[in-house]
Amino acid sequence: MTDPHQLRVTHANGSYPVYIGPGALNHSDLPGMAEGRPLLIVTDSHLANTPWLDDVRAALPAAGVLILPTGEESKTLANVEKIWNSLVERACGRDALLIALGGGVIGDMTGFAAACWMRGVEFVQIPTSLLAQVDASVGGKTGVDLAVGKNLIGAFHQPRAVFIDTRTLSTLPEREYKAGLAEIAKAALIADLSLFEWLEENMTGLNLRSETALLHAIRRSCEIKATIVAADEREHGPRAWLNLGHTFGHALEQITGYTRYLHGEAVAIGLVMALMLSERVTGLDPALRPRLISLLQAFSLPTSLPADIAPDLLLDAMHLDKKHVMAGWRLVLLRAPGDPVLQTFAGTEASHDLRAILGES
Amino acid sequence: MTDPHQLRVTHANGSYPVYIGPGALNHSDLPGMAEGRPLLIVTDSHLANTPWLDDVRAALPAAGVLILPTGEESKTLANVEKIWNSLVERACGRDALLIALGGGVIGDMTGFAAACWMRGVEFVQIPTSLLAQVDASVGGKTGVDLAVGKNLIGAFHQPRAVFIDTRTLSTLPEREYKAGLAEIAKAALIADLSLFEWLEENMTGLNLRSETALLHAIRRSCEIKATIVAADEREHGPRAWLNLGHTFGHALEQITGYTRYLHGEAVAIGLVMALMLSERVTGLDPALRPRLISLLQAFSLPTSLPADIAPDLLLDAMHLDKKHVMAGWRLVLLRAPGDPVLQTFAGTEASHDLRAILGES
Repeated sequence: MTDPHQLRVTHANGSYPVYIGPGALNHSDLPGMAEGRPLLIVTDSHLANTPWLDDVRAALPAAGVLILPTGEESKTLANVEKIWNSLVERACGRDALLIALGGGVIGDMTGFAAACWMRGVEFVQIPTSLLAQVDASVGGKTGVDLAVGKNLIGAFHQPRAVFIDTRTLSTLPEREYKAGLAEIAKAALIADLSLFEWLEENMTGLNLRSETALLHAIRRSCEIKATIVAADEREHGPRAWLNLGHTFGHALEQITGYTRYLHGEAVAIGLVMALMLSERVTGLDPALRPRLISLLQAFSLPTSLPADIAPDLLLDAMHLDKKHVMAGWRLVLLRAPGDPVLQTFAGTEASHDLRAILGES
Repeated sequence: MTDPHQLRVTHANGSYPVYIGPGALNHSDLPGMAEGRPLLIVTDSHLANTPWLDDVRAALPAAGVLILPTGEESKTLANVEKIWNSLVERACGRDALLIALGGGVIGDMTGFAAACWMRGVEFVQIPTSLLAQVDASVGGKTGVDLAVGKNLIGAFHQPRAVFIDTRTLSTLPEREYKAGLAEIAKAALIADLSLFEWLEENMTGLNLRSETALLHAIRRSCEIKATIVAADEREHGPRAWLNLGHTFGHALEQITGYTRYLHGEAVAIGLVMALMLSERVTGLDPALRPRLISLLQAFSLPTSLPADIAPDLLLDAMHLDKKHVMAGWRLVLLRAPGDPVLQTFAGTEASHDLRAILGES
């Protein structure tokens, strides 16, 4: 293999490498950092049937393997406890290294398990879904869902390293692949008009999973995320921009019981809603929205609320979203591509205003 | 009330006050920091029958109250989930403030719940046991037990403030009170010979819960802890000194199913064992041990392993203690009062050496 592209993410307590490229998971840095330590690979039943688990086992022959059920509904405290029990069984101490091989669910749970095991041990991300590769695996957000709400429980815990092997996308189901493209569109909207234009020009290549196109899109998305995380690791400010479209998206996922939409699909609809609201509130150029809709449609992603979900229902659900602060709604809007703003809708009026604006759609 | 004594604990991201004195929980700083925020008081069934919960409710009339079962066996993930569910019910966002009113179990669980709720919200400690007042409430260690081991799960999460109201000790059962004195003896051993001498001279006052004696003992213990935490918040070095006697103590608690000894009682035995080992390994003056034994006995604390627990059993149990690193045992020993050292017993030989030394006792 050729040497993978390498980024570095800096944070409050140091920095870590992000290796991007075909074959990245065979990089010698992985066995290097695992040398002489107790190791646990955490993965899911989908990955267990791919060549990627064999590759990681070959690189780390001494590692234990824990296979959890696949899917968002597996992101539970009960499964995190399974990780902790595996660490007990293997007598893993503070020098343990956890290896998360999978999509965002596996990465979030394994990272949270590592954050809390003996008050923090190291972990490595090997993201295998496009969504995890362009967003979830970088930046140290970890967590699990409660029955009553998604991602309410979690910790900031940065990985020791991230290995993004683009070969793993070849085994990703089509719908999950497309959902990941929504997060790339989001990164472009908040930070980089030229990436947005590049996406418009490279729809076909991306739809065909062209390696060249993917390398560019993943690298730029990770660069954007790394820059924002370095500036605001704990989301006191700019990091909130990464939530563009997510408050709507999370509410939609919640209303539909997390079964109808993949996260990226709900975010696609949320992005369109955020742009619509931005047009009214910040004066965003209305020409951007049809371009976004065309892009998302080219990726076979949904771009509007389904007929059976009234905007009112969505706004009600937003009350429990954790980006919501009691004093009012805080939503990320755009003033222009690459120019996001965190807008507060204060007091009880906010609810009324938002309903009025979204109700017109 | 007179103004309580105030310490400040500094850590990586700021500092916080520790108020110490009779009436400290009525300090105006508590309603001050709670103003306009969603509040949840977490306490236990023992405290619910004392005047202290009424006092805190009076200071924070808008707060919700969650009453958990009392005792070490309540320190479970299931109870932490109850805290999280209460936060959901009260629609607590990132501006929530949790108030831990109780001993170490309530403080550890509430702190952990706060650390993980939306990746970290603020919490306040109002410790009501002597052990929590002199040790557990200061320094930001939070956590819960797994069925297979104590404190394996946790987070470093510093409180927003600590209110140590010495009046609350009046409702503390005698055995728990005495167990707290063991941690004061530990603080003296690792950091302050003059505090050790003061303890020897004030045994009677402490046994009678004299307010003057308690104020001095609590203040000095907190000062010692604050100095060590400021130097090493995450326990990469000097903070480990606070574990003097604890590796033995935790193993003893585990062997006896956490029902026979209170934590402080097990630590009392562990301190004597640590001194015995120090005499052989670091050349500690053997005259200190009989003085420690006299002091602990004056506090009605145990000072040796019971006849039915062989040293071998204890050493086996130490394998799962989280201060144990796979490469060998790391134990805190004393070279002299106030001069602790973290000693590594490396490799398989270590086990043999330790057994030989402790077997002679």
